[in-house]
Amino acid sequence: MTIETSDVRAASSLLAGRVRRTPVMRADENLWFKLEQVQHAGSFKTRGMFNQILAAPSLPEAGIVAASGGNAGLAAAYAARELGVPAEVFVPETAPAVKVAKLGKLGARVVQVGNEYAEAYAAALVAAQSSGALFCHAYDDPFMVAGNGTLGLELLDQLPSGFDTVLVAVGGGGLIAGVIAALPGVRVVAVEPINASALHSALAAGQPVDVPVSGVAADSLGARRVGRIAYDMAVAFQTPSVLVEDQAIVDARRHLWDDYRLAVEHGTAAAYAALTSGAYVPAPGERVVVLLCGANTNPADLA
Amino acid sequence: MTIETSDVRAASSLLAGRVRRTPVMRADENLWFKLEQVQHAGSFKTRGMFNQILAAPSLPEAGIVAASGGNAGLAAAYAARELGVPAEVFVPETAPAVKVAKLGKLGARVVQVGNEYAEAYAAALVAAQSSGALFCHAYDDPFMVAGNGTLGLELLDQLPSGFDTVLVAVGGGGLIAGVIAALPGVRVVAVEPINASALHSALAAGQPVDVPVSGVAADSLGARRVGRIAYDMAVAFQTPSVLVEDQAIVDARRHLWDDYRLAVEHGTAAAYAALTSGAYVPAPGERVVVLLCGANTNPADLA
Repeated sequence: MTIETSDVRAASSLLAGRVRRTPVMRADENLWFKLEQVQHAGSFKTRGMFNQILAAPSLPEAGIVAASGGNAGLAAAYAARELGVPAEVFVPETAPAVKVAKLGKLGARVVQVGNEYAEAYAAALVAAQSSGALFCHAYDDPFMVAGNGTLGLELLDQLPSGFDTVLVAVGGGGLIAGVIAALPGVRVVAVEPINASALHSALAAGQPVDVPVSGVAADSLGARRVGRIAYDMAVAFQTPSVLVEDQAIVDARRHLWDDYRLAVEHGTAAAYAALTSGAYVPAPGERVVVLLCGANTNPADLA
Repeated sequence: MTIETSDVRAASSLLAGRVRRTPVMRADENLWFKLEQVQHAGSFKTRGMFNQILAAPSLPEAGIVAASGGNAGLAAAYAARELGVPAEVFVPETAPAVKVAKLGKLGARVVQVGNEYAEAYAAALVAAQSSGALFCHAYDDPFMVAGNGTLGLELLDQLPSGFDTVLVAVGGGGLIAGVIAALPGVRVVAVEPINASALHSALAAGQPVDVPVSGVAADSLGARRVGRIAYDMAVAFQTPSVLVEDQAIVDARRHLWDDYRLAVEHGTAAAYAALTSGAYVPAPGERVVVLLCGANTNPADLA
């Protein structure tokens, strides 16, 4: 399944006035950062979640259901609150109390089920079917993808002289799929941690496969299997895929704070780590945009 | 002594390619943040320091001398390193080791003298006279002011539909003086902590006076006496001056992280605190820019 630029444009209309147009900064002669980490609820997922809710033909009284203790859950809770829609967010019983509290503060009803994400996800699906609530997927949904892609359209507007390449961190692939759809003429490069390489492994296997997931960025890039939409888009557009080590991610995150005073989460730093570690080497004169896509992080270790 | 818009324009030409054009983000319908905290060396002072060095008719072999353990020292060391100029930075013996190390990492020779800033400042002046080095003032120098003001010219370009008001945190006044010069048609509002109110007290007294300095923002807004240029500019342009409590500063800094994932220093948060505390209440429809001017902060307490 693929998404078209027109789907992203439609999302952009729906989202008008709902999400922040996040700034772009020039970091070097041929390097720009898109500061999406300043988005409402701290990540790009707010775009996709708003779009899933707003694009629904009608909204059930039961509201929405999502499964995620991370960025997707926060984004779902935020979007639902802003739209006055009830939200139920399923997280594992192992979810940190601080995340549960954050979701509650955003007005969501938090349900803790099972020991890992897969169990919370399954319980959320069952709950949505039984209550009739709208299930909002964390990444593998066409409206999620199209909503996330709206930041790509912003880039076109913000960098009118053009750019050649966008580096995107990949977990389940809901962001990169949207960016590919938004920017068909641009080289969109997938960056994943070696320890959480769902897209890279799928491309190698010729189909989405389960992968082991661990490491510093697993809280945001820890999807066990890449989404079908992202996989199909990556195949259709021959998306280059590179991997980065955990240490490179930690260093890149530190570098973003030391040199730019940008505090981001490890998953986000992975995109920049592709440059700083040499996993992706731009050609001379290549104009590169790094998407900084989330900052739901504890900045204490940047002290 | 006052500075003209043409001085700021001249600085802008000198600084081309040396400093970051820092992004602007829309935070609300009539509210924008200028993200100057992502400037090289973590604050706007890098602009002024570059300008002081680049505007010098000739640069002595001895290089530059500055006195500051804070933003001005970092900015001076950074600018000097980039220009290949030796830098000597005087700080009190009481300066934290981490700050001294940071200055050293930027290649500056650090000299620790006396128990407080005034003694380091006096020693720096003596050293500059004896070696012939260029003394770079932390705020009260026309080139410092003009260099800092260049961010005001950027704002004109970045917000072509216009804006009515800019909120600026004030320590010695080197930033606000530059912004007033850059934006003669805009209402520039001075914001100071109640515990470090050098400009407010000067305006009340009819001349710059010494003030007691303490509180959470004293590390960056702790000038005992406002600069002459800033005082004269504030009088000439009838600059409104408001004060904020320490607690409002702490809350505003927390708010910038929680709602925008922007980590800034307390002094910077003071400008935003004027809005969040109600010390400055915009009229309906008034378009306000808050300058976020520095992030040389320990983000650990934002966890």
